[in-house]
Amino acid sequence: MTLQDTLARIGAAVPSAMAEARAHQGRLTKPPGSLGALEEVAVRLAGAAGVHPPPMPEPAALAIFAGDHGVHAQGVSPWPQEVTLQMVANFLAGGAVANAFAAQVGASVTVVDVGVAGDLPAAEGLLSRKIAYGTADLSQGPAMTVAQAVAALEVGIEVASSLIASGARCLITGDMGIANTTASAALICAFTGRDAAEVTGRGTGIDDATHAHKVAIVRRSLETNGLSAAGLSADSSVPDAGVAADAAPFSPEEPRPAPAESGQETQGSATRAPLEVLAALGGFEHAAIAGFILGAAAARVPVILDGVIAGSAALAAAALAPAAIDHCVAGHRSAEPGHAAALDHLGLRPLVDLELRLGEGTGGLLAHPLVCAAVRVMHDVATFDSAGVTEKQS
Amino acid sequence: MTLQDTLARIGAAVPSAMAEARAHQGRLTKPPGSLGALEEVAVRLAGAAGVHPPPMPEPAALAIFAGDHGVHAQGVSPWPQEVTLQMVANFLAGGAVANAFAAQVGASVTVVDVGVAGDLPAAEGLLSRKIAYGTADLSQGPAMTVAQAVAALEVGIEVASSLIASGARCLITGDMGIANTTASAALICAFTGRDAAEVTGRGTGIDDATHAHKVAIVRRSLETNGLSAAGLSADSSVPDAGVAADAAPFSPEEPRPAPAESGQETQGSATRAPLEVLAALGGFEHAAIAGFILGAAAARVPVILDGVIAGSAALAAAALAPAAIDHCVAGHRSAEPGHAAALDHLGLRPLVDLELRLGEGTGGLLAHPLVCAAVRVMHDVATFDSAGVTEKQS
Repeated sequence: MTLQDTLARIGAAVPSAMAEARAHQGRLTKPPGSLGALEEVAVRLAGAAGVHPPPMPEPAALAIFAGDHGVHAQGVSPWPQEVTLQMVANFLAGGAVANAFAAQVGASVTVVDVGVAGDLPAAEGLLSRKIAYGTADLSQGPAMTVAQAVAALEVGIEVASSLIASGARCLITGDMGIANTTASAALICAFTGRDAAEVTGRGTGIDDATHAHKVAIVRRSLETNGLSAAGLSADSSVPDAGVAADAAPFSPEEPRPAPAESGQETQGSATRAPLEVLAALGGFEHAAIAGFILGAAAARVPVILDGVIAGSAALAAAALAPAAIDHCVAGHRSAEPGHAAALDHLGLRPLVDLELRLGEGTGGLLAHPLVCAAVRVMHDVATFDSAGVTEKQS
Repeated sequence: MTLQDTLARIGAAVPSAMAEARAHQGRLTKPPGSLGALEEVAVRLAGAAGVHPPPMPEPAALAIFAGDHGVHAQGVSPWPQEVTLQMVANFLAGGAVANAFAAQVGASVTVVDVGVAGDLPAAEGLLSRKIAYGTADLSQGPAMTVAQAVAALEVGIEVASSLIASGARCLITGDMGIANTTASAALICAFTGRDAAEVTGRGTGIDDATHAHKVAIVRRSLETNGLSAAGLSADSSVPDAGVAADAAPFSPEEPRPAPAESGQETQGSATRAPLEVLAALGGFEHAAIAGFILGAAAARVPVILDGVIAGSAALAAAALAPAAIDHCVAGHRSAEPGHAAALDHLGLRPLVDLELRLGEGTGGLLAHPLVCAAVRVMHDVATFDSAGVTEKQS
C-alpha cells in the first residue's frame, strides 16, 4: 500500500468504545482504579480497535529494521559501523537479546534490511529491502532524499501489512543501526523544539568528550538542514492535523512544493513538511518504523513502541497522521534523555522503566505481557454482580 | 518442615556465582549495562541459586493467602468483611484479576485459607489451613498469639515446599484480606521505625476522614502493643543477624522468653523479637507469606514479592533470617506509601511501577515475565566471540 493510501485509512480512537471499556472497568471485581496505568492501556486499546472489549493483542510480531548512517563518519559512536551487519547476522542466528526476549514472550522476529552498509546473504527471517548502503551524513546535508524516505516508509507499511495478514495482532518496533541515536536526537529536536543538549544522550556508551562532540554534531545537522531550533516557532509542535493533511497527498514522484500556504517566511520546522524533516535527519530505519506505525494504525492493530529510535520515528508518524498515535503504546522509557522528551510530546506513558538502552525492540517486547494482561482483564474478570461480591460502601 | 528447621537451612547469596554472572553479562552481544536493572536481577538470581547461569524461574506458582482481621471492626475499610470470603470464591471460580494475570503469564494459582472469618466449602485449588476465624483486633491487643503466628508461618513454609515439590521454580506471593493494609502499615512502622502517618495509605480506596482515622488506629495499635515508634532505637533496623539468630530457636511449644540479653529496659521493637512483633501486629496472611518466603529461600527457589502486604511480611521474614531477602525479587511498587518504605528498608528495587493497588499477587505476576527475560539472557544470548561481533572501541 502507498503512503498516501495508508494515511487516508488511519482513523482516530473511537470514544464510544473507550467509554464502554471505562464503564466495564468499574463493574469488575476489584477496587475502582486499582490496576493503575493498566486500566488506561485497556481503554486505549478499546478506542484504537473501536470495540469493547478490544481483541487480545496476541500473537505479537517484532520487526527489527536495520540501517547504517553516514553520520557515523563523524565519530559519534565507539562502535564500528560493521556491527550493524554483524548484529543482523546475530538476530538471524537467534543470538541477540531481542531473540531471547521474543522467545520469552512468544513473539515472532522479522529482520528487515532497509539500509545496511554491506551485503547480507539471503536467510530465513530476513527481508531484503535495502534502499541504499547507509544514509548520507546528516551533518553535511539531508540524510535521505524525500523519495528515499517515502520508499522506507512504504517498506514499513508493507512489513506491517504482511505481518498482520499472517495473523499478528500486535506489532512491536525494533531497530539496529550504529549511530542511530544521533539521528534520533536530531529528529526529536526538530519535531519537539527541544535543544540538542537536552535530548542527546550517550547511546550505547560514550565518554564526556564524545558526548559533547555528539551534541555539536546534532546541532550542526539541524543548522545545515535549515532546521535549527532558532527557526522553530512555538506552534511547531506535532501532532498537527494541518501539517498532516498537507503532507498526505505527496508521493515520491511528486516532490513536495514549498508550504507557501503556511504564511511563514522563516524556514524552521514549523514551516517544513514532516516528510522533508524526516528525510533530512532520519535514518532508513526511522522512516521504516514510522511507516510500520502508520501501517499498524491503518489496520487498527496496536503497535508497541520500543525506545528512543521508535519514539523519534513516532514523532514523524504523528506529524504525518496525528491519529496514528492513538494506536501506539509506549513499551518502555529508555535511559536516553531524548526518549522522555519524545514520549512527553506524544502524550504517551511508558510501561516499563528499567533503564534499558539497548534498542532492538527489547523494551517493547518486555511490555507485551503487560499489555496483554491489561486487555485480558477486560475479557476474563468477573463483575461484582456475576461473582456475587459485595461492593464497597461509600 | 518446622520454622526452626527452615531458618537453619536458609543460606545467603553465593558471591562467586554472582561474580561469574556479572562477568558473563560483560561478554554478551550488547553494550555493557544496556539491560539496566534486569542485569542485576539475573546476577541476583545467580547468587540466590548459587550457580551461573541461574535456572530459568519457570514454571511459576502463585499462592494467595487469605485471612480476616479483627481491626476491621474499627472502620478502617469501606469494604464489608465478607468480601474476603467472596473473593476467595471468585479466585476459585477463576474470575479475579489474579486469575487473568496468572493465565497470561502461565502461573498456577493456589488459594490458602489461613484465617477467613467464615466457612469455605472444599474446592479444587483451595487449601484449608484455617488457624482462626480472623485475627483479634490489633488496636486492642496482640492480633495473634505467638503460637498462632508460628502456625501461620509453618503453613507458608508447607505451601512453598509443596509447590516446589510439584515443580514450581519461582514462587509468587498473593494475599486477600479486607483491612490487611492496616496491619501492614503497623508492621512497617514497627520494623522500619517510620511514623504511622508516613506509611499508612488509602488501601483499596478511602476518603480523607477514614484515612486520618486509619492512621490513628495504626498508631494506637503500636502503643497498645508496646511497639510505638518512640520506643524504637536507631539500631532496630532489620535485617539484623543478631535478632534472627535469637529468634530462630523458638517454637510455639516454647514461648519465647523476654529478651533480657538485649540490655534494654524500654520495650520498643528494638528489644522485641520479630515473632512477637509479627504476632502483635500481623494478619494470618502476613505470617503465612513470611513463611512462604522463608520456605522458598530455604530451597533456594526465587520468590517474587507482590505489594505492600508482601513487603511488610518480608520485613518479618528478614528479621527472622536476613539471608531470606537474597532470594526475593520485588515484583512491583504499589501505590501504598508504606510499600516504598518497606522496599527501601529491604534494599529491593521494584520492577513494575504502574500504580497498582490491588494485591492478590497481581503485581508479582506482572513481574514474572521480566524476571524470566532477565534470566533467559544468561542462557540464550551469544557472546561477542561466539557471534563474531566486533566490540566497542574504547
